[in-house]
Amino acid sequence: MTLTDTRLTGHRATLDQALEAIRTRAYWSPHPEHPKAYGESAPAEGLAAFEALKGTRFDLDQPGTDGWAGAEISPYGPELGIEYPHIDPDVLLPAMRRAVPAWREAGPERRALVCLEILARISARTHEFAHAVMHTSGQAFMMAFQAGGPHAQDRGLEAVTYAYLEQTRTPETADWSKPQGKRDPLKLHKSFTTAGRGIALVIGCNTFPTWNGYPGLFASLATGNPVLVKPHPRAVLPLALTVRTAREVLAESGFDPNLVALAAEHPGEGIAKTLALRPEIKIIDYTGSSSFGDWLETHARQAQVYTEKAGVNTVLVDSTDDYRGMLSNLAFSLSLYSGQMCTTPQNLLIPRDGIPTDAGHKSYDEVVNDLAASVGGLLGDDARANALLGALVNPDVKARLDGAAELGEVALPSRRISNPDFPDAVVRTPVIVKVDAAVPESESAFLTECFGPVSFAVAVDSTDAAVELLRRTIRDRGAMTVGAYTVSEKTERAVEEVCLEESAQLSLNLTGGVYVNQTAAFSDLHGSGGNPAANAALCDGAFVANRFRVVEVRRQA
Amino acid sequence: MTLTDTRLTGHRATLDQALEAIRTRAYWSPHPEHPKAYGESAPAEGLAAFEALKGTRFDLDQPGTDGWAGAEISPYGPELGIEYPHIDPDVLLPAMRRAVPAWREAGPERRALVCLEILARISARTHEFAHAVMHTSGQAFMMAFQAGGPHAQDRGLEAVTYAYLEQTRTPETADWSKPQGKRDPLKLHKSFTTAGRGIALVIGCNTFPTWNGYPGLFASLATGNPVLVKPHPRAVLPLALTVRTAREVLAESGFDPNLVALAAEHPGEGIAKTLALRPEIKIIDYTGSSSFGDWLETHARQAQVYTEKAGVNTVLVDSTDDYRGMLSNLAFSLSLYSGQMCTTPQNLLIPRDGIPTDAGHKSYDEVVNDLAASVGGLLGDDARANALLGALVNPDVKARLDGAAELGEVALPSRRISNPDFPDAVVRTPVIVKVDAAVPESESAFLTECFGPVSFAVAVDSTDAAVELLRRTIRDRGAMTVGAYTVSEKTERAVEEVCLEESAQLSLNLTGGVYVNQTAAFSDLHGSGGNPAANAALCDGAFVANRFRVVEVRRQA
Repeated sequence: MTLTDTRLTGHRATLDQALEAIRTRAYWSPHPEHPKAYGESAPAEGLAAFEALKGTRFDLDQPGTDGWAGAEISPYGPELGIEYPHIDPDVLLPAMRRAVPAWREAGPERRALVCLEILARISARTHEFAHAVMHTSGQAFMMAFQAGGPHAQDRGLEAVTYAYLEQTRTPETADWSKPQGKRDPLKLHKSFTTAGRGIALVIGCNTFPTWNGYPGLFASLATGNPVLVKPHPRAVLPLALTVRTAREVLAESGFDPNLVALAAEHPGEGIAKTLALRPEIKIIDYTGSSSFGDWLETHARQAQVYTEKAGVNTVLVDSTDDYRGMLSNLAFSLSLYSGQMCTTPQNLLIPRDGIPTDAGHKSYDEVVNDLAASVGGLLGDDARANALLGALVNPDVKARLDGAAELGEVALPSRRISNPDFPDAVVRTPVIVKVDAAVPESESAFLTECFGPVSFAVAVDSTDAAVELLRRTIRDRGAMTVGAYTVSEKTERAVEEVCLEESAQLSLNLTGGVYVNQTAAFSDLHGSGGNPAANAALCDGAFVANRFRVVEVRRQA
Repeated sequence: MTLTDTRLTGHRATLDQALEAIRTRAYWSPHPEHPKAYGESAPAEGLAAFEALKGTRFDLDQPGTDGWAGAEISPYGPELGIEYPHIDPDVLLPAMRRAVPAWREAGPERRALVCLEILARISARTHEFAHAVMHTSGQAFMMAFQAGGPHAQDRGLEAVTYAYLEQTRTPETADWSKPQGKRDPLKLHKSFTTAGRGIALVIGCNTFPTWNGYPGLFASLATGNPVLVKPHPRAVLPLALTVRTAREVLAESGFDPNLVALAAEHPGEGIAKTLALRPEIKIIDYTGSSSFGDWLETHARQAQVYTEKAGVNTVLVDSTDDYRGMLSNLAFSLSLYSGQMCTTPQNLLIPRDGIPTDAGHKSYDEVVNDLAASVGGLLGDDARANALLGALVNPDVKARLDGAAELGEVALPSRRISNPDFPDAVVRTPVIVKVDAAVPESESAFLTECFGPVSFAVAVDSTDAAVELLRRTIRDRGAMTVGAYTVSEKTERAVEEVCLEESAQLSLNLTGGVYVNQTAAFSDLHGSGGNPAANAALCDGAFVANRFRVVEVRRQA
């Protein structure tokens, strides 16, 4: 099959809408969130497609395949039993490099349109991807569908859009004529070509394989770089499906499919470290632990390294004119995907003397107990709890949850939930632990990222003390998100100042259906790139501008 | 004196023209190149102003001034005898940080307009700056005037323009409304603020203090960062004048003058190393040796580091249809400022069997001898030679020139020129040394940067061998410029491919009044940022995009 030009150029309108969206930052998405939007047969077909993959060898017809690897076990229980290509980089990387010249010559617009076709094909298979994401990340189905499907596709498209915009600010050609008084002007004909830097490596994560993988993957591909995808060993399938789709579209559009390839690994092999130091690798995108992110930044000096690492997210609670709204909003934020989001609040800073609210003054204990009750109410029904919490993604998260009780006084204990469809799934409600900022031993606990369904109700001396603790937390530990509840203009301004100075994204007084841990592509920035939690933001000009270089050729006219 | 809003907003038209220029890359500059354009009294006033500075203490009224430093001696002979503030960073850096909030709140447009006013004031004093540049860099007056004046101001304005553009792609505010079917839409009000990263450090160079200093200085300032300027100890005055002008304009526009400050140093003190590792320093711009550039990239991990380092520039000579034009163009490129430009060609790759030209076949020896004669003719008249060559900037350059004869067979010996105005100036014509690429011992000589008036006529087996040597040179040694002369489409294509793959800026068949070592702001890129000679290009989006972060605050609407 060959892709028609009409099919590709048909995506130009979407690209134009995306360009407009990142300019206005108004709401926009071409990818529907509702499962029903994908057609009546889509749910059954998606499930069947996913089931058919189980126990198979996922061949991608890649050069340099020297074996097969894969041992994914769903956090919901079932083994996937899928084998993926293991690579010999000495064969695959040169093959990927050979694919570059034609991709470079295609230019920014054609590259963008091919990327949009890849995303369109992924979008059409969103139900299949949803099951793949669910059974690797442990997300509940609806979240896997939305965050792993349309939201991830949005972030991919956003990256393509920024890449296109940044590459096209310099014209392809220019005629330059410099006046010389009475003499003839000096004249030059100039051409400007965007050229990728080399092979890009995407190192995927366990919890959001597509959402965190797509921005780097599409930013690098759209800027002319081949992309090697090294998925997390527990979350290979969503990215393997992505790679297969990309290779199909590339081949059908007349490009070398080796522009996108997969590198699976044997248990404990740690190929990310080896690949990251290869001289051919010029760009690395990574989501995961701070220790490996810092290692990459320090050692992979031949590459541009974009990292999203650990952070400690804070919500400062000063006052509110919607106490119930605040509690229910926070309860949802703490519960969603069992707190296994890099954006989930960890520390709730509450003045020990309590806070003024529309429901009267509330003491520290009242706020904590009311929040605990709110979480309890939200997750009281097991079906609803399962739909919100999903499953714990791995034993490390469970171990942290189990250890949380020792870190302070438990205000809300974690509860075990049964999942009738998947009896082996480890489903737990979040724990809330009371700690006191004035107790030095507590600090090491609440100022360390405790990834998973653990949050700390931190008693602070005052709102001023909370603002200073917030500043220190962002500066020293990093933060993907900051939230604050206050009716005081002065406090609002102080929190804003801290976020401006320490570079963190702030959500103020969320009491409705938007949550601090959710961001919308084309409008919200994910991370700031200016604090220790991440060295890049999704998505801005800086995320794409250094993935390519502009090469000028000038000739006398 | 207070700057009126009218004066500042008057620069908006210039900013708009600059925005248009970087979009079209057609010729444009608001800064006249001809000394006469600055008014009849400007030359005398400029000279007088420069002379009046000699032997004085250059006070900038900076906090944390703990002493005075300065020992500049003009490459033309005279001691400048000027003392500049030596800083206590523990006092100055906190003062600079305190200046940030108001500068951030001013927003991208006002920051740009203030930067344009600084540039306009510098422009008005171009004659004074020309003498300052001449007597620190050793450039001849006309070059010091043009490269140190309008061309440097152009590069500064270009950086401001990119900074403005990059900061304004995200709107200041956005209203976001997400449909929820039959329910009310989710609504948020969002604000987006560009915030600098912290204090920027500019480490100046000896040869082009303003031209190489302005891009980083203005890019950082325009993106909201205070800028600490650490000039080269031999070239303090041009940047001290710049800092004084900036501080005046900042104060008059109601900002803290400590947004721009100077750090002079005692001989051998090496304060760049200390300053570069201060936690307050978040951005570093550096032009100079590869060893210190690499050190900065490796050790100043808390900062974004932009470096321009050493490289080996190549001109590939394959064939020409304008032999005389080629020779005279190359002769000028080798002679200008005694080859002391980072863009001067070093290696001329010439097939050992000679080349076809419009004047018949020319053997390797004929090409070399004709080029030598062309340089000799160009510099035959001492007055013209002085005007083109300037003076050797420091004893290291002279030592390299003196040692060049040992590196191969001298095709054109260097000649000593007397400067009647400055008898102590060290003025030398360039040397051309014949080497053979097939002789392994030669390689270490011609593949090492030999900064100064030394070039190598490298005999190569064939044009194909030259193309491969060019590739290896760029990849391993870096290159700020590449030139080629060829009438063959195949060779042209091959050289272009190498430049695209190895990321180097190429000039083809220059035979007239444009030279491979000159680039024009708003149109030509200086360096590519994609090979070892520099990790950034002047100027593109990547040069500015990571100097600031965008902080979002979202509120329920």
